[in-house]
Amino acid sequence: MSSPEVRASAGDVGAREVTIAVVNCNTSERMTAEIAAGARAVASPGTTILPLQPRWGPRSAEGFYDSFVSAAAVLDLLVTTSEPFDAVVMAGYGEHGREGVRELLDVPVVDITEAAAMHAMLLGHRYGVVTTLARVRGQISDSLLTAGLAARCVAIEATELPVLEVAHDLERTVAAFEDAGRRAIAAGADALCLGCAGFTAVRDLLVDRLGVPVVDGVTAGVLMAEGLLAAGSGVPRTGPYDAPLAKDRPGWPVSPA
Amino acid sequence: MSSPEVRASAGDVGAREVTIAVVNCNTSERMTAEIAAGARAVASPGTTILPLQPRWGPRSAEGFYDSFVSAAAVLDLLVTTSEPFDAVVMAGYGEHGREGVRELLDVPVVDITEAAAMHAMLLGHRYGVVTTLARVRGQISDSLLTAGLAARCVAIEATELPVLEVAHDLERTVAAFEDAGRRAIAAGADALCLGCAGFTAVRDLLVDRLGVPVVDGVTAGVLMAEGLLAAGSGVPRTGPYDAPLAKDRPGWPVSPA
Amino acid sequence: MSSPEVRASAGDVGAREVTIAVVNCNTSERMTAEIAAGARAVASPGTTILPLQPRWGPRSAEGFYDSFVSAAAVLDLLVTTSEPFDAVVMAGYGEHGREGVRELLDVPVVDITEAAAMHAMLLGHRYGVVTTLARVRGQISDSLLTAGLAARCVAIEATELPVLEVAHDLERTVAAFEDAGRRAIAAGADALCLGCAGFTAVRDLLVDRLGVPVVDGVTAGVLMAEGLLAAGSGVPRTGPYDAPLAKDRPGWPVSPA
Amino acid sequence: MSSPEVRASAGDVGAREVTIAVVNCNTSERMTAEIAAGARAVASPGTTILPLQPRWGPRSAEGFYDSFVSAAAVLDLLVTTSEPFDAVVMAGYGEHGREGVRELLDVPVVDITEAAAMHAMLLGHRYGVVTTLARVRGQISDSLLTAGLAARCVAIEATELPVLEVAHDLERTVAAFEDAGRRAIAAGADALCLGCAGFTAVRDLLVDRLGVPVVDGVTAGVLMAEGLLAAGSGVPRTGPYDAPLAKDRPGWPVSPA
Amino acid sequence: MSSPEVRASAGDVGAREVTIAVVNCNTSERMTAEIAAGARAVASPGTTILPLQPRWGPRSAEGFYDSFVSAAAVLDLLVTTSEPFDAVVMAGYGEHGREGVRELLDVPVVDITEAAAMHAMLLGHRYGVVTTLARVRGQISDSLLTAGLAARCVAIEATELPVLEVAHDLERTVAAFEDAGRRAIAAGADALCLGCAGFTAVRDLLVDRLGVPVVDGVTAGVLMAEGLLAAGSGVPRTGPYDAPLAKDRPGWPVSPA
Amino acid sequence: MSSPEVRASAGDVGAREVTIAVVNCNTSERMTAEIAAGARAVASPGTTILPLQPRWGPRSAEGFYDSFVSAAAVLDLLVTTSEPFDAVVMAGYGEHGREGVRELLDVPVVDITEAAAMHAMLLGHRYGVVTTLARVRGQISDSLLTAGLAARCVAIEATELPVLEVAHDLERTVAAFEDAGRRAIAAGADALCLGCAGFTAVRDLLVDRLGVPVVDGVTAGVLMAEGLLAAGSGVPRTGPYDAPLAKDRPGWPVSPA
Repeated sequence: MSSPEVRASAGDVGAREVTIAVVNCNTSERMTAEIAAGARAVASPGTTILPLQPRWGPRSAEGFYDSFVSAAAVLDLLVTTSEPFDAVVMAGYGEHGREGVRELLDVPVVDITEAAAMHAMLLGHRYGVVTTLARVRGQISDSLLTAGLAARCVAIEATELPVLEVAHDLERTVAAFEDAGRRAIAAGADALCLGCAGFTAVRDLLVDRLGVPVVDGVTAGVLMAEGLLAAGSGVPRTGPYDAPLAKDRPGWPVSPA
Repeated sequence: MSSPEVRASAGDVGAREVTIAVVNCNTSERMTAEIAAGARAVASPGTTILPLQPRWGPRSAEGFYDSFVSAAAVLDLLVTTSEPFDAVVMAGYGEHGREGVRELLDVPVVDITEAAAMHAMLLGHRYGVVTTLARVRGQISDSLLTAGLAARCVAIEATELPVLEVAHDLERTVAAFEDAGRRAIAAGADALCLGCAGFTAVRDLLVDRLGVPVVDGVTAGVLMAEGLLAAGSGVPRTGPYDAPLAKDRPGWPVSPA
Repeated sequence: MSSPEVRASAGDVGAREVTIAVVNCNTSERMTAEIAAGARAVASPGTTILPLQPRWGPRSAEGFYDSFVSAAAVLDLLVTTSEPFDAVVMAGYGEHGREGVRELLDVPVVDITEAAAMHAMLLGHRYGVVTTLARVRGQISDSLLTAGLAARCVAIEATELPVLEVAHDLERTVAAFEDAGRRAIAAGADALCLGCAGFTAVRDLLVDRLGVPVVDGVTAGVLMAEGLLAAGSGVPRTGPYDAPLAKDRPGWPVSPA
Repeated sequence: MSSPEVRASAGDVGAREVTIAVVNCNTSERMTAEIAAGARAVASPGTTILPLQPRWGPRSAEGFYDSFVSAAAVLDLLVTTSEPFDAVVMAGYGEHGREGVRELLDVPVVDITEAAAMHAMLLGHRYGVVTTLARVRGQISDSLLTAGLAARCVAIEATELPVLEVAHDLERTVAAFEDAGRRAIAAGADALCLGCAGFTAVRDLLVDRLGVPVVDGVTAGVLMAEGLLAAGSGVPRTGPYDAPLAKDRPGWPVSPA
Repeated sequence: MSSPEVRASAGDVGAREVTIAVVNCNTSERMTAEIAAGARAVASPGTTILPLQPRWGPRSAEGFYDSFVSAAAVLDLLVTTSEPFDAVVMAGYGEHGREGVRELLDVPVVDITEAAAMHAMLLGHRYGVVTTLARVRGQISDSLLTAGLAARCVAIEATELPVLEVAHDLERTVAAFEDAGRRAIAAGADALCLGCAGFTAVRDLLVDRLGVPVVDGVTAGVLMAEGLLAAGSGVPRTGPYDAPLAKDRPGWPVSPA
Repeated sequence: MSSPEVRASAGDVGAREVTIAVVNCNTSERMTAEIAAGARAVASPGTTILPLQPRWGPRSAEGFYDSFVSAAAVLDLLVTTSEPFDAVVMAGYGEHGREGVRELLDVPVVDITEAAAMHAMLLGHRYGVVTTLARVRGQISDSLLTAGLAARCVAIEATELPVLEVAHDLERTVAAFEDAGRRAIAAGADALCLGCAGFTAVRDLLVDRLGVPVVDGVTAGVLMAEGLLAAGSGVPRTGPYDAPLAKDRPGWPVSPA
């Protein structure tokens, strides 16, 4: 298990040679690669992006069932990997598990659902989320609610494009997101979150067409993780995110350490 | 996978020969047995209690990490069991996964966190939760929030008794819960939920000493599941709980079907 | 005044020979009979349904004025009846008075507005209410708010069918409810409550046409009352629902004891 | 039934010869007289105070049961009185019925619970309520919640002085309210509402001792009613407060017209 | 600086010879005059209306930038004027600064945003705001939120008429407000606030056409200020509105005293 | 007026030669210098920190009055400065004006109140704020509310140390903040925000003593601004933050351009 000390001292911040694990929550290698590329595109020069992917679980996660399977698969990965890292970006929009990872590790953990909402809330007065399938709106809404970030979210709009088909036809994808974005703007949004990972390509096109900021979660997540590392504010040693109790967990982790 | 049709017709309600799977979320056989005993003690004559326990995972779940592991272990169990049943009671107080089980199965699924809160809200004007460790208050609070049941919860108080030690000394256990209960009452509660499974023994003593109703989650959960079955109102065929999409899930389920 | 002891001991639960007073809040004998029939159709074999109806007040209650009159008429009835019962189901959807009955009696009191919302919240992720007249939406919304059950209610839609005319044309009634239900589903609901008593006939048709669970309040209320009786969790002896203070109440009750 | 037209035209505002019915919700003649005296002490020269009292019901209302009885007794009074008036002040703090009166009459209706909160919210940043018995805190909290005025209420503190004994010992009364007020201030309040009618005598003493504004409900209610009459903004002719439907209401009103 | 003592004693209320400063937040003399005329039209005979206008700042305020400039300009005015007054009405709908004025002065301070919402909440069950430009909806929503008055606001609808052009064509103005009002009513409102100052002329026409009360902010504000003065409940001497700390403020006030 | 285009294209992100204006809201040169030092200590190598201070206004801002004066003084500064910059950090904790600056400029604007809360929400499950004077808790609470960040804030605790005296006695300061921090932790916080600028010195000591992360606002603000610039998500061109309307603003800006 990788859990390097977070440096609460600001002394060594200047260097900022940090490694950020960017964890795709599903087992699609193509999506892991896209996420990694998006992360590297915005990371600071001193940041190493470590792309990770669970050893088992669904090829894509669009629903509560897959989300809970993925959450455990991500925990299984993190508890068995020997790769060192300084922070984690959980790159599944609206997916479960962030609180468990925060408990497991003593490094900053950023969920892209949270990071995207935070960027959007700093740029606009009300925000909306544009996502793929209508069925995931419940998850996203729950995720923003427990994150305490729902108060200024005025719309979660779906394109009804399946995650794995999005890349095939860029113009159709952009058009679908533009349409969903206009519905969110009509509901009062002046900033949008892309409610899915791997859509950096469509972001700039949407900004131009809609006239509002459009936040990509992986982008926001990596930059937020860099910020938390540079701040060096510490992590909790007490309360809900205190280290897991030592106990017997037969059959767990599922993967060999 | 077991997913018998829920009967939306009220025609066969009279008989009420139903099987309710009562799922302990952890792998403690003693606790599974206690939960089963508690369930049977309140079940109607026509109800068969089917106690289930995940095939892997923590011996007890007190924290987000164990809760997410348990959620997947429960899904792994439910997707691989060949036992038929008509409803599910998820017998882990404040634990994750209920939405995933609702998506997976087309039978009513009752989380004891929800059922206990509902009973308490029907009996008192404001309710409190008395639980074991302070660290789980975050989970419980999140669980009530996404359940939409937090508005009348005025306190979540901890006894600081570890789950697995509770049974050893009944009087000490009752005294600790009584103390936590008085703090909740001082905060405005006039009904209490026992925020952990397997505590039916202490309930009646607490009712006598505190003068407020005390709700046991397994009790409430089984009775709520019976009620939902008798009502036969159907389950959603659309929206967030629509059946999981067909897709490749390598390595899942973890257990053989 | 009828206020039998609730049995906090689980010992005698097995028998479950209980009497549940199902109280129509208005003075329409036809509606009282329909409610009683609906209650009996779902009640357990050991449950006796005791239909009650106020001795005075409006023939139907669709509005705050009639609702407050009915609330007192129900209290007048309950304080003067000599019929023994073990629990109360208040069968007026969105009507006032439940807190007063809880204070008056020391048996479980279930308002169908609450019971229906609870069943819906266990079955779907967000729920809507479909009711008769648009004017009663304010009452329903207030009732869910004080019940602490509003957080996951996304729509209250009206058919504009007057209560007393509903029975005359089943197909027109079903069509009107189906239309209101579709509006609620478009607003995000994946479960519906029938926001009025006496509509069990339309429920199964709606489930088939809409693909979401549809909860009838009387059904949910009776089953919830049975559950509370079987649980035997006690009722508050302190706080807002403590027994009414002894005092002079000239002219009250209105009816002779 | 008295329901004079509200004048939506501002033309005749200058004169302001208006009659305000100040309705005690209980049947204590002493309290009706005290409320009337308090109302007259603040009313404008052109305002006639018409004190009203239900023809039946509890001598004092401290609880949900008495509150619902009183609500109907007040409606019974208003539907049978032949006295003309231009507005109503409902002088029972935390008592039910205001929405029913608004539906019944087409004149402005001010509940002192609302008026006091509004005055307090204009004077301080957060407010508290100091009231008599702890048991009524639930009612007050529900009343502020449905009124949409709860967001800035930080405390409801009880003196445990019974309503009818308050007048007997002024110093003891003031001391009890001062103590409750200090608890509210410690919770963040910088303005207080007197959560009961007939306490104008203690108000000025409390302002001096506590250094925060103290709002008397009858005072605020009468002045708010005068303001609404002078504004002449109209009352709803549609929606939840539309006039009650014509229908049969056997046995109602209870009192002869 | 003008800060006469508020009279906490009710003794001198009868006379009610009071002066209310009605502060336009922008520097349009025409609007100041209109606001003053509206204020005088509803003020009691004993009330003197003192119209005030900042010495600098925008001609109209429709946006956060102008609103914050105006807030300081109003404070600059109030800290430098030698005119005595007994209460302040801040006549900029949705504009900032009320909490600063409350801290500065020890007289009652009424923001028309608050006063209008309060009148609307006493008249209808849910209210909406109809305003000029869509861009100010964010400010209005924030203003109602911090005022604790947002819970029953169901819509903020814009006419897209610029403030300074409204007066030119009464019929076009009324038609635009009527259209916005119908959208608010469709969203559930049964009372409306005119979300801008200087529109008293359109109010009566709207009441007639829409069948719901329409509240003018200046009207409500002046009457609320009169009510607070007559009540004499005091102002806070402690907490967030305690007098500003003595300190060096170079360059402030901007205007000569 | 300085309003360089924000680069929505990610193309030039690699370089990250950016200038961030860090705006002290008061006119204390010592505090401006401390804030600048804190900002420089965490800024990336390519970031130039441009410390700014209003040309007029209070030496420190602890209250609504000073906060509104400062908000305009900051706007006056930003509208008249010729210094170019790429983003703004508003370094006054709990102070007003951020929405006005967002409207004025088309660069990202980060309020340290928001940035600190966001860092805290990513690190802990519930957060608290520890600040100087009790009187500013109202401002902070309002600021978090309109920012949509209040849901997970469980306490705002004051040290009662005046802002300008904090630096004089480090140990006394740390002890006071530690005490306030323990009260916040007792209320459920597992992360803290330093609710005032210029306290970076005490942060690391507090982390060690309290075992929870402690977030400094200037630190979080600068890093968040860097992140927003690197993300290049755009800023709104429509809605509440659209550019201010062209209009006459006599006497504004106060300072010469």
